Amino acid sequence: MHKTEFKVRDYECDMQGIVNNAVYFNYLEHARHEFLASRQIDFAALARAEVNLVVVRAELDYKASLTSGDQFYITTQYQPVSRLRFGFKQQVWRSRDQKLMLDAFITGTAVNASGKPFLPPELQLLLD
Amino acid sequence: MHKTEFKVRDYECDMQGIVNNAVYFNYLEHARHEFLASRQIDFAALARAEVNLVVVRAELDYKASLTSGDQFYITTQYQPVSRLRFGFKQQVWRSRDQKLMLDAFITGTAVNASGKPFLPPELQLLLD
Amino acid sequence: MHKTEFKVRDYECDMQGIVNNAVYFNYLEHARHEFLASRQIDFAALARAEVNLVVVRAELDYKASLTSGDQFYITTQYQPVSRLRFGFKQQVWRSRDQKLMLDAFITGTAVNASGKPFLPPELQLLLD
Amino acid sequence: MHKTEFKVRDYECDMQGIVNNAVYFNYLEHARHEFLASRQIDFAALARAEVNLVVVRAELDYKASLTSGDQFYITTQYQPVSRLRFGFKQQVWRSRDQKLMLDAFITGTAVNASGKPFLPPELQLLLD
Repeated sequence: MHKTEFKVRDYECDMQGIVNNAVYFNYLEHARHEFLASRQIDFAALARAEVNLVVVRAELDYKASLTSGDQFYITTQYQPVSRLRFGFKQQVWRSRDQKLMLDAFITGTAVNASGKPFLPPELQLLLD
Repeated sequence: MHKTEFKVRDYECDMQGIVNNAVYFNYLEHARHEFLASRQIDFAALARAEVNLVVVRAELDYKASLTSGDQFYITTQYQPVSRLRFGFKQQVWRSRDQKLMLDAFITGTAVNASGKPFLPPELQLLLD
Repeated sequence: MHKTEFKVRDYECDMQGIVNNAVYFNYLEHARHEFLASRQIDFAALARAEVNLVVVRAELDYKASLTSGDQFYITTQYQPVSRLRFGFKQQVWRSRDQKLMLDAFITGTAVNASGKPFLPPELQLLLD
Repeated sequence: MHKTEFKVRDYECDMQGIVNNAVYFNYLEHARHEFLASRQIDFAALARAEVNLVVVRAELDYKASLTSGDQFYITTQYQPVSRLRFGFKQQVWRSRDQKLMLDAFITGTAVNASGKPFLPPELQLLLD
């Protein structure tokens, strides 16, 4: 199970004093890219080669709110969706009490410079 | 139908040259707050009174990508979900060709300072 | 005098209930890109052509804080700095009372793909 | 010398493929709050008590650009400015070659709920 460690930064909190909803999306993206890197898939190098990994669907269930100073980690698991789509089950856990804060399922695909679906060989690694 | 106008700002684009996935979440939040303001519900005033409107579930279907300079608008429609939960159907439309870019359904609730569900009278306006 | 209109969005406010310091930087960048666009200089097209406009120095004086719902505008004036560097005097003004909120001077340059200073002909327009 | 470790996250990069200028401001804020925490000053607790630490002036010299995957650290040093203002000399260093990426000086003050300068006793720790 792939795991990425984080700590809330104060600028990520909004006027409610809690991490803003949109920021979880940033966290999840970073955890996915770390997961990909652990399988030798370099998101930035793909982007430079005009192979864009894009999100096609996101489902997020917010369970509880992270706040200033919280340490947490995100678990990322690959789940096949279809021949051209790949899924990631991701969960945000607060470290101090192992509380589940957010449960997400992100579906992605890869497109080439003209926006057509295109699965480069590197991404086959996801299926191994 | 409530409508909020936007224009992509370059800092919202990522290394793929398109608006980053997380930024749509910011756009949708702003459109919901504008929708609430149009019904005399002031998100910031509620937050100061320690009534926090929070998102409990988000479903986003990404159809196509906005890019530098694109003008677009978001439509927001209220949909009741349950006695304590309210829903917003939101869609992002590119202005120049009326193309649907993103389709979302956001479910929210209101909690008081101790995190308990609490629907202040102002929010009853949503149900009218 | 070039002028760009804005309205504070709630996600731009931090736990102090005011616009976060870093966000002014986003505002200023957007205003500069709008200024450039008004002179037919397209930041995104330049980036795609691997001519990168970059900031080399920023000086910001924060006078007062914008908050939820505030409408404001930014004035941007070009000021030559040197043969390879261009300057922008930028000011943030709150619309309702014409109060100066922030006073900034941003110095930029243009570099090519290998990071060398390179002033493309389009940018000569700045000097006219 | 206080030091905070970071790694660039892909969502922090803009269409030029480098960390966006505004993001350095986020990095510097986080490093200052970590510095304050190391001296038992809790930014979020002060904000809840309506003592707001605010930036009054920022000077940033951008030397080189961080990009996807870069590891870096920020050094933060306290420097007295006046009876009511405190300064932070902050530098961003790329870890792999100890290259200076950004040199900054941030001046801050503390204000109470009505916006008046107010230096709480905790902040005297800064002067020790």
